[in-house]
Amino acid sequence: MSKINLIAEPGKQEIIITRVFNAPRELVFKTFTDPASIPNWWGPGYLTTTVDQMEVKFGGVWRYLQQEPDGSKYGFKGVYHDIVAPERLVYTFEFEGMPGHVMLETVTFEEQEGKTLLKEIAVFQSVEDRDGMLQSGMESGATESMDRLAELVEKA
Amino acid sequence: MSKINLIAEPGKQEIIITRVFNAPRELVFKTFTDPASIPNWWGPGYLTTTVDQMEVKFGGVWRYLQQEPDGSKYGFKGVYHDIVAPERLVYTFEFEGMPGHVMLETVTFEEQEGKTLLKEIAVFQSVEDRDGMLQSGMESGATESMDRLAELVEKA
Repeated sequence: MSKINLIAEPGKQEIIITRVFNAPRELVFKTFTDPASIPNWWGPGYLTTTVDQMEVKFGGVWRYLQQEPDGSKYGFKGVYHDIVAPERLVYTFEFEGMPGHVMLETVTFEEQEGKTLLKEIAVFQSVEDRDGMLQSGMESGATESMDRLAELVEKA
Repeated sequence: MSKINLIAEPGKQEIIITRVFNAPRELVFKTFTDPASIPNWWGPGYLTTTVDQMEVKFGGVWRYLQQEPDGSKYGFKGVYHDIVAPERLVYTFEFEGMPGHVMLETVTFEEQEGKTLLKEIAVFQSVEDRDGMLQSGMESGATESMDRLAELVEKA
């Protein structure tokens, strides 16, 4: 199974994640942007993720809720800026527990001989925000999300 | 008259602009977010700016058109992520002539003894994008916009 590659250079305010999926990019893009699929891959598997809002268009809003086994809930939200199927998504991202700390995510899907290279660039308002995200365990969360997404698209 | 201060450290993917206005922050925020005021301060004065769309809310879309004296037009657009009046705005920004190159702007308005410190942090998808924006003459454009905004709020 492919692994994610995470780049976060010291002093920069970005995180770059790449991952190869053994599936066509139309399918990867479709699954990535399908509200019905989100609960099946977004975030760690021990949390229950639900889609509160998700309108994949310029100006559309997305909001997901994650529920811990103990019942406590966290919200994440953003707005879509760019949707160029099946090539590119650009959207904002905010953890509701840290209001005002917003990042810009750019996700590109590149076809490579039947496989798909997914590249996600997350840029933060500051280096401190970027470092805080890394310290929050972002890498393991991203790894598990990408593994779960791979299971969905590679078994299809 | 106050001047802008622009910080763009080598190798970083952000531009930070600050400017002090001799006006209360409620007025600066209101003027900054008022569609009727945009044509009077946004961009260089020799261009004609019109507001095509501007809905200042989470998920709201903005789009401005700038017309050169020779009639040619350029579009700029984005979506609002965060609106906390009169403190903070977060929105995306894209020049339609360079599709896919999107930045995230965070503008804060801080009250300082009756004056207002406006701080704008623009973060880019890459250092190259940031450097391209600087080379496009962004500093003189920002200076003129801020001067025009000052004229509006300081004479009020």
